[in-house]
Formats: sequence, structure tokens, C-alpha cells
Amino acid sequence: MIVDGKQIRPIWMDKKTKIINIIDQRLLPHEFVIESLLTVDDTIRAIKDMYVRGAPLIGVTGAFGVYLAVLNLKDKALDDNCLIGECMRLKSARPTAVNLVWGVDRVMSKVLKKRNLEDRVKAALMEAEIIAEEEAENSKKIGEYGFAIIKKISSEKKGKTVNILTHCNAGWLACIEYGTATAPVYTAFDNNIDVHVWVDETRPLNQGARLTAWELGKHGVKHTVITDNTGGHLMQHGMVDIVIVGTDRTTYTGDVANKIGTYLKALAAKDNNVPFYVALPSSTFDWKLRNGVDEIPIEKRDPDEIKYVQGLEGKTIKNVLITPKDSPAANFAFDITPARLVTGFITERGICKAGEEDIKRLFPNPVLKGFRL
Amino acid sequence: MIVDGKQIRPIWMDKKTKIINIIDQRLLPHEFVIESLLTVDDTIRAIKDMYVRGAPLIGVTGAFGVYLAVLNLKDKALDDNCLIGECMRLKSARPTAVNLVWGVDRVMSKVLKKRNLEDRVKAALMEAEIIAEEEAENSKKIGEYGFAIIKKISSEKKGKTVNILTHCNAGWLACIEYGTATAPVYTAFDNNIDVHVWVDETRPLNQGARLTAWELGKHGVKHTVITDNTGGHLMQHGMVDIVIVGTDRTTYTGDVANKIGTYLKALAAKDNNVPFYVALPSSTFDWKLRNGVDEIPIEKRDPDEIKYVQGLEGKTIKNVLITPKDSPAANFAFDITPARLVTGFITERGICKAGEEDIKRLFPNPVLKGFRL
Repeated sequence: MIVDGKQIRPIWMDKKTKIINIIDQRLLPHEFVIESLLTVDDTIRAIKDMYVRGAPLIGVTGAFGVYLAVLNLKDKALDDNCLIGECMRLKSARPTAVNLVWGVDRVMSKVLKKRNLEDRVKAALMEAEIIAEEEAENSKKIGEYGFAIIKKISSEKKGKTVNILTHCNAGWLACIEYGTATAPVYTAFDNNIDVHVWVDETRPLNQGARLTAWELGKHGVKHTVITDNTGGHLMQHGMVDIVIVGTDRTTYTGDVANKIGTYLKALAAKDNNVPFYVALPSSTFDWKLRNGVDEIPIEKRDPDEIKYVQGLEGKTIKNVLITPKDSPAANFAFDITPARLVTGFITERGICKAGEEDIKRLFPNPVLKGFRL
Repeated sequence: MIVDGKQIRPIWMDKKTKIINIIDQRLLPHEFVIESLLTVDDTIRAIKDMYVRGAPLIGVTGAFGVYLAVLNLKDKALDDNCLIGECMRLKSARPTAVNLVWGVDRVMSKVLKKRNLEDRVKAALMEAEIIAEEEAENSKKIGEYGFAIIKKISSEKKGKTVNILTHCNAGWLACIEYGTATAPVYTAFDNNIDVHVWVDETRPLNQGARLTAWELGKHGVKHTVITDNTGGHLMQHGMVDIVIVGTDRTTYTGDVANKIGTYLKALAAKDNNVPFYVALPSSTFDWKLRNGVDEIPIEKRDPDEIKYVQGLEGKTIKNVLITPKDSPAANFAFDITPARLVTGFITERGICKAGEEDIKRLFPNPVLKGFRL
């Protein structure tokens, strides 16, 4: 995407230096810092500590992580067990987004086919770059399919502003280009549809207030930041036309893992007859899991992410304590929105209902392309 | 309630100095500061800027505000129109909590019956103090009635921890003693029931993270702070036995205005068969309004309350910016939980269902005791 006139992605290989770069998303919108990933450990830290986040981006980062593993292991990279060990470390950096496993396995499957070091390095890099391009293309298509929905609402409203609510950041920062949930918004905006986005701030890490608001602002899209508590009230008063969110993992039966709080918005949407869409590339489907609530692992993160809030004081980023020092906190990072609350999925192959039959109609052969350990 | 061995209320008249004191709740849990209210303007500022908050406490503060009006107007306090003007200013300090109008009107009705200044001053003070005592007593009774519900759950769980979720602060800081939503918790705790409270942090002003956590901690009650996004996940996994919240205004038909986000928790409770109770003194019922969503005024506050988060850095309270500087924010302070989502009301006269018939069974003669302008 274009930021201040410059083309940028949240992860890329510098053509001159051949170094993998990422935007350190922890510091946005206050500071725009670029970091380099040189090793598997760098990659794991970037994923775990959320320099990068968002299911598609985590997948692509994991894919580049395999390349870094092969590159750094040098001769040992011909030892499959050694490589598999590095992949396992990468895959366990975060538990919920299925794209991580998918991206790592997919690159690994290409690497294992090659028997000399140079070929392995090349194969890893090529597959990681193919994945990145595919995800960019997937997002573009999601934007086009989702645009049709927004266009229809705009037409029903006779051109009046279409109000879209989104939770967390499923923008280009979470993907490669366009985003998932925000791709239809950008496409609608670029096609002169009058859109306005209600941005859930998305506690505890405020990816909405920090990242989605920043992205939309840079693109010139009208938006308003709200607390995560607000969506129900807005929907009760006809102030939301559609909810679109991303997902970190969606079962083939249509249960959606996404940032904690998504389920509450889905309930409110249902209660007020507001369409609730989930936008995702096929890499986010989990073709093995049937029941989201019972089976998708929910990451529990450091309670300090709740107790301390990061923000800007003057020109300095600071962390301030909002609770009593001794009060415990619990930090569940995701929740599950059952398929029954989802109006539909917006995918790179079109729109489908949130049920096994319709999902499998779009994706009849969900081959696990990846290498499963 | 007792804090660090000292008996304290959130508003009181100092017996020696005859000055009305309040706790400045904006600074808790980081600083414990006591402020004096000397004038009507002090009182309005304290209510508007949320030095004091919580429906019952706003009502009591408004009641003392009438006393301050009479006291400060001196000879002019014999001019009814002049007094009524001051009352109108007090009543418009905040729009949603009906207790403010109720408290001011009730004191005013006593004052207007007296024809000399000294009697007016005495009548105002006496009625304000009666209201404060009544609300303390109401909370105590709410605690006892609510305790029965918690005790039953504890017994069904064979003594295992009863997990209670609450939103915002409806503790003694919001009332005079015990609280509304937390009164049953304190009573259960004091009766050796094993209770644990999930404390919604309650953005934007974090009354949960700041005040409820502080209150519960001081009383020794087990609690865990969570983001407002978390309750749905907890309920899906059987980790919440009961939700109890307070309310700023409840229609005689059972629609509940409470801190923004309450509606989302009520939806999640319904979806997971978790009982959802609202605890309130009768002063919080609005006997005139039939439809909460359409009729209860929802306060819209300063967007900066969302954009800036207050917390402690080192030993200093600071405000940090969490959004891009130019991103707009919208700050709706309350939402409406429709009666259909409420399991029951816990009042000073017992428990009733959330419907006109059952509410009027408990309160057959909801006389508007107050003076209506």
C-alpha cells in the first residue's frame, strides 16, 4: 500500500541487501520503525512479541522464517531433522493463527524436495515470495468480492454513507496488501463509494485504535475510533450497516477464531439484523477442525498487556499502569464466533455461507499442500 | 466501607467542619485524594467531570448540592424561582442517571415547604442526609437479597468458587456503602462463600480496572481484571456463573441503561444461559419511561476520554495518546440492555423479573416523592 507517497508492505526482502525487513507494528501510529529479520530467533521474537501480527502476515513471516532457517543453518540445512526442528520452533511462536503452520509447512515441503544447499535456499526464498504474492492477490480479490456487498448497501441507501464496523486490524498491516476485512473498504473507497468505518479500539493492544485508524487515515478513509463496548449501542440505533472482521483461524464448518471480543460484536449484529461478514484467504481455513469453541487453541498472553497501556506522552512512547498494582489480570487473545452468527465469508474465490457445505463448494479440494510434521 | 482500617464513604459531611467531602475517584487507584464541595458549581463539576459517579452516588451528591445551593444563596434562597434555577443547573450536570433528578427533586420538595432561611437550610441538609442513609440501607438489603442467589449457586457447585462477572463499578464507590452489583459479592464474601469476580476494565474511563479492582482488593475479594472483550469467551467456557451489574436508569418496563458495553455482556449471558442480574435501589427506576432504547438519553462525552488513557508511570499519573492524533473518536457513555435479556432485578425490596408487572408488584405505588419542575 502507499503511505505518504511510498509503496510499502509489512514484510519484504530488500532487493539490494537481500535482507528481510518488517514494520515494527508495536510502535505505530506513533513511530514508524523498520526492523530486519536475520535469524529464526528474530522471526520468532517478531511473531511472539507482535512486531508482526495478523493471520496472513504471520503466515508469510513464518514462510520467510523457513528461508532464514535454511540460510543460517548452512551445511546443517541438509539435515532434515535439524530443519524440521527449526520449523517446529517457528510454528510454536503463536498458537491460534493457523496460517503460521500453513506457511511454514508449505515452504518446508518445497525445501525437503531439494538435496543440495543452494537449491534449498533458493526453493525456500522462492516459495516464501510466492506465498507473499499469493496473499497480496488473495486480498485484492477479497476486496473485489466484498466491494460488491458494500456497493449493494450503498445503492440501497441511495448513496448515503455506508457505515462499516470492524474489530482489531485486518488491514494491509495484517496481510500484505489491502487487508482482509478492510480490503472491501479500500476497494469501495477507491471506487468513490461513501464509506465510514467504526474502528473498535481492540483492547488490550489497541490494534484498532493504533493500526486500523492509522491505515484508514493514511488512505483518506473516514473513520471514528470507538471503545470495544460501543458496537452494540451503534447497532441498536441503526448506525452500522455491516460488520466485517478478519480471522486467525476458521474451521471448515465455519466457526471463526478472531481477536477477543469479535463474538460479542457478532451477537449484537445478530440481535439487530446487521450483516456480519468474515473476510479471509483460504490459508486461514483449518481443514482439520470441526468445532471452534472446543478445538481451536486460544492464546493466553502476558497480563501486563492489560495492566499497562502504551501511548504517547509528548513525543515519547510510554507505558502507564491502569489497574491497582497487585490486581491480577487475565489476557485471552481470541474468542470463537460460532458459524450460526456469521452471515458469510468473503474469500479469494468469492462469498459463501458459514457452513461446511458452502465452504466446501468454494474449496472442493482443500489439499493440505503443506508438509505436516 | 473500611479502607486500610478506616471507615469511609464516597461522600460525607465532616462533623467538625460541616463541610461536604468527596473522594476524587478520577485518581484512584493511584492516588487517594479528598475534595471539598463548597458550592453548586463545585457540585456540578464533581458530577460532570466524574470526581463522583455511579447512579446512587450522583443522586446523593445532587441532594447535597441542593443543600449547598440553599446555604450559598443566603437571602436569595427564599426566592423559589432562584432556588429552582440552581436545581435545574444541578439536574443537567449529567443526563442519563435518573437518580440525579430524583435526589435533587426530593430535597427541593422538602425545602419549598419551609418559609424561612434557617429552616430551608436545615430541611435541605436533613433530607440529603436521609437520602444518603436510605441508599446505604438499600445497598445493604440489595446485598442480602443478592447473597441468596450467590449462596444457591455456591451450593449447587458444592462450595466451589462462584465466578461473578461485573461491568464498570457498581460498588460502594458508586453508592454509599456496599454498592449495588457488588453488595451481594461483599455479603457472600463476608459469609465465607468462595467468590471470585471477573472485573471488566470498562473503557474508556476504566472504572472496572481502577475502582472495582481497588475496592475488591481492599476488601480481600479474589478478582481478575479482564478487557471488556473477554466476557463472551469466559461464558462460552463455563467460567462465569452469574453476571451482576448496576444501572444508571431502568424503565418501569425493565429496560436497563448502564455503562456502555453492558448490552454486549447481556447478549453473551443469554447465548450461554448465564443468569444476568441488575442490582438497583428503587431510586434508579424511571417510572415515566416505557422504552429504554428509544427514550433514555445517552450521554455523549469528550472523545479525548477514548484517545487518551490515564495511568501511572513511576509515581506520576499521566495521560497517553493511543490513537493517531487526528483520528476522530466517539464516546457514548451508556447503552440499553432490553428487558428480555435480564434474568432479574435485585432491589431493596427483593428480587423481581424484568417486566412491568413484576416490577410494579414490588413497587406498587411508585410515588414521585420528588418535586418535579
